[in-house]
Amino acid sequence: MSDIKEQIINHRSIRNYQSKSIPDDVLHQILEAGICASNTGNMQVYSMIVTKDETLRQQLWEVHFRQNMVLQAPALITFCADINRFNKWCRARRAEPAYNNLLWFCNAAIDAALASQNVALAAEAFGLGICYLGTTTYNAGRIIEILQLPEGVVPVTTIVVGYPDGQPPLTGRLPLDAVVHSETYHDYTNEDIDRHYAAMEASEQTRQLLEINRKETLAQVFTDNRYTKKDNEAASAAYFDAMKRQGFIIC
Amino acid sequence: MSDIKEQIINHRSIRNYQSKSIPDDVLHQILEAGICASNTGNMQVYSMIVTKDETLRQQLWEVHFRQNMVLQAPALITFCADINRFNKWCRARRAEPAYNNLLWFCNAAIDAALASQNVALAAEAFGLGICYLGTTTYNAGRIIEILQLPEGVVPVTTIVVGYPDGQPPLTGRLPLDAVVHSETYHDYTNEDIDRHYAAMEASEQTRQLLEINRKETLAQVFTDNRYTKKDNEAASAAYFDAMKRQGFIIC
Repeated sequence: MSDIKEQIINHRSIRNYQSKSIPDDVLHQILEAGICASNTGNMQVYSMIVTKDETLRQQLWEVHFRQNMVLQAPALITFCADINRFNKWCRARRAEPAYNNLLWFCNAAIDAALASQNVALAAEAFGLGICYLGTTTYNAGRIIEILQLPEGVVPVTTIVVGYPDGQPPLTGRLPLDAVVHSETYHDYTNEDIDRHYAAMEASEQTRQLLEINRKETLAQVFTDNRYTKKDNEAASAAYFDAMKRQGFIIC
Repeated sequence: MSDIKEQIINHRSIRNYQSKSIPDDVLHQILEAGICASNTGNMQVYSMIVTKDETLRQQLWEVHFRQNMVLQAPALITFCADINRFNKWCRARRAEPAYNNLLWFCNAAIDAALASQNVALAAEAFGLGICYLGTTTYNAGRIIEILQLPEGVVPVTTIVVGYPDGQPPLTGRLPLDAVVHSETYHDYTNEDIDRHYAAMEASEQTRQLLEINRKETLAQVFTDNRYTKKDNEAASAAYFDAMKRQGFIIC
């Protein structure tokens, strides 16, 4: 067994960075790891946009909920579903593409995500730290403007990359058997739910969260404070609009 | 620099497998690697379904376009976007979830894809081979039936896992600068397209594909034979229906 699993289980999101920049050859190797991931039909319908420029990162910082790490880390990599390049190739080769639909958005988004995870792991192997920005799907419209994404291109996820300033503790996960099903899906009883969430609910971190958020249960911290119905619905409608504006027909 | 990048750049999809089964502790460690991937808000809104049973694999083989590797390899792992577990937890804790929309389908699908790539790399680190089944998004409706997925659960991608029978050649990729953009997106000129696709188009593999498919250009092999407009549109509509049937509101 190699040290890959060792590295994978020691993954933690890094939210504080040194100002040190990433050498070009290291960045090159990390990005190269990205394109080695499996992808649908080897069509590579995704793009990676590396943003280092301070003015652009300032704009992206606004979009990514003003998280400081976006300004601290020397580079952001935005992973996009991209049928634009493939479409242009088809049209230049007397072929008529028809990939502007939900299926191909999903295929392209999955491929972009696989590439991003290769990039993340390669970065960590070089001693860099990363953090995913889930805010990418929340403010896709603004990211499209800032990064000048043409028709056929939609941002899917982003990672910040840089040299870690400190080593945060590992984040807990649900027990493996909460997430894995054997043979077919086995739906959860109330007892299963209690058992799977017991350790997380009993943690000191949860106790603090309940106090800070003045909530009775950890689940309420998610539904009432972090990801509310109102915000979810607005952001979902906005992401749908962004897909449509970029030429995807969703139905 | 560790050997991770070495492994990543030597990744190839394995389509022929030995009959040898995967030891339980190895499988356990591979799956554990999956849950260590970053995920949205640490909500873990995905599931991994491990299918070894021959009757079930026979049914999945039909769904996955009768690719022999589905029968050969000892295990299939289906990665699903899953808000069902989280919803059940919320409802058992006096919290009202609202994650049944396009945004959270996408968040969950990205998280499922990140987990799958960790599983794939951990499997390879144990000397196993893997192949992604893009057919998962094509026949999601049947997979939902076979794997008995409840409301809130949609299959996103699948990998077959097993001991490789032979080592196929590496698959070529577009040059890195075809996929990477610096600072913002730089749209492709016709000259860019010619340059980026030149090596792929000039390859012996392309020559053979044009001959077998009786096509003028490689792009036409994709648009006219592999992923046609008619198939894309039908599969896209079916995936949209599957999402809706599983309770996601897509708008």
